Amino acid sequence: MTTDVVIIGCGPAGLQAGIHSSRKKASTVIIGKLQNSALHGAHIENYFGISGSADGSDLLEKGMEQALSFGCRHIGMNVTAAAKEGDLFRVTTESGEEIVCRSVIIATGISRKKLNIPGEKEFLGKGVSYCAECDCNFYKGLRVAVIGDESKAAVSSELMTRYASEVYWVSERILADGRLVDKASGAGVKIITGTPKEVRGKANVESLLLTGGPEIGVDGVFIELGGKSSSDLALDLGVMPETDDTLKVNNSFETSVRGVFACGDITGEPWQLAKAVGEGAAAGHYAAKRAKDMK
Amino acid sequence: MTTDVVIIGCGPAGLQAGIHSSRKKASTVIIGKLQNSALHGAHIENYFGISGSADGSDLLEKGMEQALSFGCRHIGMNVTAAAKEGDLFRVTTESGEEIVCRSVIIATGISRKKLNIPGEKEFLGKGVSYCAECDCNFYKGLRVAVIGDESKAAVSSELMTRYASEVYWVSERILADGRLVDKASGAGVKIITGTPKEVRGKANVESLLLTGGPEIGVDGVFIELGGKSSSDLALDLGVMPETDDTLKVNNSFETSVRGVFACGDITGEPWQLAKAVGEGAAAGHYAAKRAKDMK
Repeated sequence: MTTDVVIIGCGPAGLQAGIHSSRKKASTVIIGKLQNSALHGAHIENYFGISGSADGSDLLEKGMEQALSFGCRHIGMNVTAAAKEGDLFRVTTESGEEIVCRSVIIATGISRKKLNIPGEKEFLGKGVSYCAECDCNFYKGLRVAVIGDESKAAVSSELMTRYASEVYWVSERILADGRLVDKASGAGVKIITGTPKEVRGKANVESLLLTGGPEIGVDGVFIELGGKSSSDLALDLGVMPETDDTLKVNNSFETSVRGVFACGDITGEPWQLAKAVGEGAAAGHYAAKRAKDMK
Repeated sequence: MTTDVVIIGCGPAGLQAGIHSSRKKASTVIIGKLQNSALHGAHIENYFGISGSADGSDLLEKGMEQALSFGCRHIGMNVTAAAKEGDLFRVTTESGEEIVCRSVIIATGISRKKLNIPGEKEFLGKGVSYCAECDCNFYKGLRVAVIGDESKAAVSSELMTRYASEVYWVSERILADGRLVDKASGAGVKIITGTPKEVRGKANVESLLLTGGPEIGVDGVFIELGGKSSSDLALDLGVMPETDDTLKVNNSFETSVRGVFACGDITGEPWQLAKAVGEGAAAGHYAAKRAKDMK
């Protein structure tokens, strides 16, 4: 039996796509692990309709409940292969199960680039963050370090001066646009040349140690190295990535290949929960429509 | 003092835009009445992160709390005028207050076209709905009437056959595409030619009375006449509406006029909470960025 819509990825974009697709009575399978979403373990306060701050893992579980309640099937595995076959697509999971479908939605997000230093993983959500724009408000009056060589780190440093009491921008060599660097330092960012070696703390982050050089007392460490997407999957489906990180979509969230849709972080910035959800709704809507139109 | 961002409309799109704009530390004013949002009084179950069904009015109040907590100012009035002045904009409220700003976001939604018959207003949310796609799931196994002459009513009727036990499509004259009509009647929709006169019931809808014609026993009445936007405001700002209902925006949710952004239902279908929220996040992000870049 041919499935109408297969969604790869079960973060907020994928789950909202599943909700909209299944409510249109398209048979819908969501493939992916909840724990792989960037929302897992995050604190959220900038998503419409939430009072105070919400736990990202709770939101994911509720979103999955919703999708299942409308009739989605969930396979909690990774996808190992995807291929175009005429007007249809064949998606293969880790267990070897093959699903043939009319529409595919890529909602795999991006993997934030990691430093891979001690303490980075341990303190994730306890002072370590990969998104200044998402988490800025939690660091009011505190001291933070922003790590990264490029413009993204410059912009994030400057943003953090509006919240934190002290902002250190730690960079090996500055590759950012000169005007952005001037703006950051004009806003009071202290620029430190060095290589991060370890994030230290007890319950929460307390300092950032640099190689051969000072241990900076901070309450937060923002790692702003940019993103890396799972674009191999897109290539397998014949979609040419726009950049290393992102896929280009039209107004119906369809990629350059008819029947292949994309939504969420993989379509580009801003990397925000609300954006992912909005795109998921539209992608689910149009993917279900395409499946219906094919019958 | 010049305000960075003025948002006209405080439904989910406007409030999410306010959340994102104010978190970027742009001074932000939201103008509008919560009660004017289509979400007010609605039941929501297809928005990521909600378990069961949520009350639309509650969501609006929480969204407003969020926006205020990040520093937005709210003026609970209608806008009476808006004008472009060089690179800036002047927005005037009912009380005569004038606000000069760097970016404007139009998030006024669309006014659903109404039948203006007895019972329509009284039973809103108690069996009367203006969005089959939003509320279909609440009518499982029940009897519904869909009212409208055009393709939107045809598509909604067919969708409802997947939920309701009986679906009547009430139309004065069929203007919809023939293939859509065939699809609806093939799916079991009963087409009735007639003019709705009154929605009747006690606590909830019980029947639809037609002029000079039968009283049809139904549990739900879906009024699918399309939308009507407050596009006068857009014209005042120099933006040419795309259709009577909608404004065209680019990838940054900016209209044809630099500095004027739009988000939510006014940018077109699907008219879904999740879409409005996603667009609000992006519009708030880009409107705040434009205000910052002007300084």
